[in-house]
Amino acid sequence: MVLRKRIFDIIQPDDGTSVLSMVFDRLITVLILMSVVMVFAGTFDLAPITRRWLYVLENVASIVFTVEYALRIATADFLYPESGAVSSRLKYVISPMALVDLAAILPFWLPMVLPDTMLGIRALRLVRLLRIFKLNRYFDAMRTIGEVIAAKKRELLGSLFFLAILMLIASLLMYSAEHDAQPEVFRNAFSGLWWAVATLTTVGYGDIYPVTGPGRLIGAFIAFAGLAAVAVPTGIITSGLTERRGREKGESGKPEGEV
Amino acid sequence: MVLRKRIFDIIQPDDGTSVLSMVFDRLITVLILMSVVMVFAGTFDLAPITRRWLYVLENVASIVFTVEYALRIATADFLYPESGAVSSRLKYVISPMALVDLAAILPFWLPMVLPDTMLGIRALRLVRLLRIFKLNRYFDAMRTIGEVIAAKKRELLGSLFFLAILMLIASLLMYSAEHDAQPEVFRNAFSGLWWAVATLTTVGYGDIYPVTGPGRLIGAFIAFAGLAAVAVPTGIITSGLTERRGREKGESGKPEGEV
Amino acid sequence: MVLRKRIFDIIQPDDGTSVLSMVFDRLITVLILMSVVMVFAGTFDLAPITRRWLYVLENVASIVFTVEYALRIATADFLYPESGAVSSRLKYVISPMALVDLAAILPFWLPMVLPDTMLGIRALRLVRLLRIFKLNRYFDAMRTIGEVIAAKKRELLGSLFFLAILMLIASLLMYSAEHDAQPEVFRNAFSGLWWAVATLTTVGYGDIYPVTGPGRLIGAFIAFAGLAAVAVPTGIITSGLTERRGREKGESGKPEGEV
Amino acid sequence: MVLRKRIFDIIQPDDGTSVLSMVFDRLITVLILMSVVMVFAGTFDLAPITRRWLYVLENVASIVFTVEYALRIATADFLYPESGAVSSRLKYVISPMALVDLAAILPFWLPMVLPDTMLGIRALRLVRLLRIFKLNRYFDAMRTIGEVIAAKKRELLGSLFFLAILMLIASLLMYSAEHDAQPEVFRNAFSGLWWAVATLTTVGYGDIYPVTGPGRLIGAFIAFAGLAAVAVPTGIITSGLTERRGREKGESGKPEGEV
Repeated sequence: MVLRKRIFDIIQPDDGTSVLSMVFDRLITVLILMSVVMVFAGTFDLAPITRRWLYVLENVASIVFTVEYALRIATADFLYPESGAVSSRLKYVISPMALVDLAAILPFWLPMVLPDTMLGIRALRLVRLLRIFKLNRYFDAMRTIGEVIAAKKRELLGSLFFLAILMLIASLLMYSAEHDAQPEVFRNAFSGLWWAVATLTTVGYGDIYPVTGPGRLIGAFIAFAGLAAVAVPTGIITSGLTERRGREKGESGKPEGEV
Repeated sequence: MVLRKRIFDIIQPDDGTSVLSMVFDRLITVLILMSVVMVFAGTFDLAPITRRWLYVLENVASIVFTVEYALRIATADFLYPESGAVSSRLKYVISPMALVDLAAILPFWLPMVLPDTMLGIRALRLVRLLRIFKLNRYFDAMRTIGEVIAAKKRELLGSLFFLAILMLIASLLMYSAEHDAQPEVFRNAFSGLWWAVATLTTVGYGDIYPVTGPGRLIGAFIAFAGLAAVAVPTGIITSGLTERRGREKGESGKPEGEV
Repeated sequence: MVLRKRIFDIIQPDDGTSVLSMVFDRLITVLILMSVVMVFAGTFDLAPITRRWLYVLENVASIVFTVEYALRIATADFLYPESGAVSSRLKYVISPMALVDLAAILPFWLPMVLPDTMLGIRALRLVRLLRIFKLNRYFDAMRTIGEVIAAKKRELLGSLFFLAILMLIASLLMYSAEHDAQPEVFRNAFSGLWWAVATLTTVGYGDIYPVTGPGRLIGAFIAFAGLAAVAVPTGIITSGLTERRGREKGESGKPEGEV
Repeated sequence: MVLRKRIFDIIQPDDGTSVLSMVFDRLITVLILMSVVMVFAGTFDLAPITRRWLYVLENVASIVFTVEYALRIATADFLYPESGAVSSRLKYVISPMALVDLAAILPFWLPMVLPDTMLGIRALRLVRLLRIFKLNRYFDAMRTIGEVIAAKKRELLGSLFFLAILMLIASLLMYSAEHDAQPEVFRNAFSGLWWAVATLTTVGYGDIYPVTGPGRLIGAFIAFAGLAAVAVPTGIITSGLTERRGREKGESGKPEGEV
């Protein structure tokens, strides 16, 4: 029991009191980053010897992550002290971070369980990339932004819906205006949709653009609408952040205001 | 009378109390989305059999929308209980949503009424796309943003007017600077205008750009002005959203503040 | 005297009371817009007959603007009632709007005064475009934004200074990284500067971009700095607009707050 | 002693009281700008005689900057009157502005001290460009923005971390989707990363973009995420600037509020 409690303290994110816990956190972080680098490296043409080393390192990382996952389940009763021995484990297994941990080790174990795996090599590679989310445990700065986005969900969805309608209309108008002049470029309404995405987001690759007079008129209109596509979500998020701060100040200010 | 009231309750947007109303809303939504998909599909080279199926589906959707339109008119007296039998129908027919409903079925009925329709196939297709606005009935999240834009109309128009002047001057300056170096690219002041749109909105397709020293100087100036073209409307919309929230809080706060 | 006062009332921007004043405003606005369109039209290859008509219209507009300018000077004593007959005219002549009016008619009179004008045809054309600023008289919505920009001048200049330094460093780094790989594209540090402008403002024409590893690393850094180049001025302008509104509300709110 | 005090007053940024100090400031500013222009000029193909003149000017500037550096150290005891003769000099030498001054003259002295300098010509050139930061002494408008960015460091880093994860996933997904269709363009995951940078920052050079259906779907998703990449940092900086202003007003407002 004492040992399990010690292990629990070590594998929990370091709160600055334990050297061992900090060493464990660093080790896991290094393995995660190494894993991601290896996924990238795997897309290069590599010498067989390098590829073998990557394979060994990948397996070491997978085994460490598996042990980590097992230990986290084994000590989950300390995380939820109010739950029972079984229910605390179940509760942990379905928590988002535990699912990320599971996804991180699946590409290693799945091919062993299912000899003729249905997942291709590329799909497995992408799943391995999900390991980056394991870092989330040590990094909570995104929470504020996530909360603001959640609080403004309705307005943000509203502006996305407006953008979607605008894109649909623009793509069909543009297809109608340009199809005769550039039949190879504006093949169908989907080409128009791709053009509308590149223009509304102001990316503008330059692979597809209007050349006729009416097409350029529509293009100019959508390009200016792209300014709104930046302005409206920015305004929503900014006002969300300002309100949040106002509320925080209001809450912390209450005790001072009371007599 | 009782039946008409029942129908009215069903075709009104579902408020969570009636299963039939919800089913009707879903059916209409599916038909709208299917309609839009079919407009897109119509721009592809399709096998005759697929094209025939699209034609049948399109007609089914048009008939359903026609019945929906008729029912909405027939039950308009429940929507405006204070108006008379005729005036309530007239009031409804000229309401924005009813006009959208009418536009949605016109492409089906117009060619029957006017055998040699003056509207080309493409124009009809675009009108059919307007059906997407029928979704508006079930989606009111855009209202806040619309109200903020309406409240800040003067300032937003002011910044658009400034952009327009900037574009006019930039396009003529750029035409003067680049016409000799790239006579085929900067043919006339309209080419300059198209360049100015792509640069001010920071889209930058890359089909048209300055190559001479003076041209690049003007280009750099307009590209930086493009930062302002994003910054100013964003600032206006953000301050509009913040003010609105402040006013709402002020109003809801009053009862608390009063003694 | 009575006639001069009447003329003054007519040529002043319409305040909704006089039909003649409104007609005059509309006439001038139409002539201004026609003038701008003609400057654009002049850059096309036109038939001699069209070109002649443009020439006639241009001269008519110039004469009307000259009469307008003369009338405004003749009635300037009503604009500055506190000044004397001469000083009120001088005061008016050096006011920004009067200078715009003067610039608008110079391209017509200058070639007559200086037979072998030193100004080329293109320069005259650009000066004629300045007429668009005459519209300013009827359009004051840009004032708020201008005031906010003026109030935040120091911070906006600060961020521009930062961008300038970033651009200088980025252009030289990029030149150093890419000159060997693309000697024709990154010819000298000025090519690097043009690249830095296109990237920092997120325009990205695609005429010039890094292809080497180090070049792309610098490019990625500057592209992300471009996000800041949008974010910082937007933030400054937004906070300026919000403050301004707060001050306005504060001022108008005072009487309510006082007892 | 009196002379050293006089020199200190002259080399300190002018506060509007001394003509000599202002002349000194202007001289240094001109030399800094000339230096930067010369670094740019050095990347052009120049006639030997021009190159020689640049060399002479560069050496003059370097010697003036060296004398300035020596004088600043010699008079550092006036800057930190509370410190002793030695400690005030040490304190000054390690201050950021003094380090910039040192970096500005190193490219001149280093090749003399180390005959076979390890620094290449290009590296020296880049170091010389650092002189631009000497201007900082006369320009403090960036401080406000720097403080806001420092105050919001956590949130800004959070959004950068989110962008980094998004970029990693997008680049690998895009590589998987496009590698078969464009093996030469999407060679490895690093090509995908370069694409993700250009798209998320909405630069969009057009050297690399998806052509397949799945690739364009991922591309559209990342292009819209790019809107968030602009919106979130802008929101953070704006709310930071607004809060700062609120705090300033709160502080200055206290005395008024108190009775």
